[in-house]
Amino acid sequence: MQQRIRYTKRICQDAKKIEDFLATMRVGTLAMITDDGPYAVPVNFVWVDQSLYFHGLATGRKSDALQKNPSVCFTVFKENGTVVDPMPCAADTAYMSVVLFGSALLVEAVKEKTMALQKIVDKYMPGYYEQTLTEKLVDQYHSAHDQKSVQVYKICPETFTAKENYAASEDLFMRTEEIKQ
Amino acid sequence: MQQRIRYTKRICQDAKKIEDFLATMRVGTLAMITDDGPYAVPVNFVWVDQSLYFHGLATGRKSDALQKNPSVCFTVFKENGTVVDPMPCAADTAYMSVVLFGSALLVEAVKEKTMALQKIVDKYMPGYYEQTLTEKLVDQYHSAHDQKSVQVYKICPETFTAKENYAASEDLFMRTEEIKQ
Repeated sequence: MQQRIRYTKRICQDAKKIEDFLATMRVGTLAMITDDGPYAVPVNFVWVDQSLYFHGLATGRKSDALQKNPSVCFTVFKENGTVVDPMPCAADTAYMSVVLFGSALLVEAVKEKTMALQKIVDKYMPGYYEQTLTEKLVDQYHSAHDQKSVQVYKICPETFTAKENYAASEDLFMRTEEIKQ
Repeated sequence: MQQRIRYTKRICQDAKKIEDFLATMRVGTLAMITDDGPYAVPVNFVWVDQSLYFHGLATGRKSDALQKNPSVCFTVFKENGTVVDPMPCAADTAYMSVVLFGSALLVEAVKEKTMALQKIVDKYMPGYYEQTLTEKLVDQYHSAHDQKSVQVYKICPETFTAKENYAASEDLFMRTEEIKQ
């Protein structure tokens, strides 16, 4: 299912590394197509059994876009710093990225919805709640923003690309984690 | 030129903050439309006089996509952590994001191309090179990857959205910078 990438030396084929990357990265960019052109927003997500879940409000631009056209591209990256080179044009970026292509479909089944939301809680607030989510709570809760039920979407990727440009710390001008943003 | 956002309380209208954000953030996601659906990739960029510049190879999927359809959405985000709430569904994410909409057009003029590449060098490798780039170098240099000249694109945003969900450190479950990724 992995797509051909021009920079063949940058293809990451290490399934464990890709899995770990998607398990730990906190934000991905969800790109959609709207009548006005491309539209892309950052979202939190979880990666469960080769599927990606994210959640959001039942109303708004993202929800409208996905309802009209569920085709998405989901991009997750981690920039590690700039790779120096005596020749400016040959300087480069150290990074890892995974780009998934597929359809983002609304999860209707309350059981699967609850599972995905629990995974989100476990990832972003591990150990914070004493109790796990119940299907009843998920079914009955309505957002204070729009008085509607939270929506959970699932992407089963049809294809993906995984790229890595690894550089040792000493070859980096600055490691991104050292840069105060 | 700023678009309407549903969460009005999250609109950031602080021009200085938006400017600083775009000046310091290192990676944005460039979302395009291809015949196969949306396509989005992370790129380094510079923000100069209300325009965004990024560079890349003259060959490849991004270049092909932009040639066919220059309409893009450029998304820059910084996640600051998870905002806790006793009610799981009311937990939230602290972040800032700027999303720009416009066309990504190839910069043909060697003077502007050199200016943009110099700004990229200044941003990602400040002080590393003793000399600044010359138009001659930029004009004559060909990438080792495809033996073609590096391409510089410019986005003059037609519209944009800037959002911020600020949370004090004590309301965050974990500040993202504390999380080892």
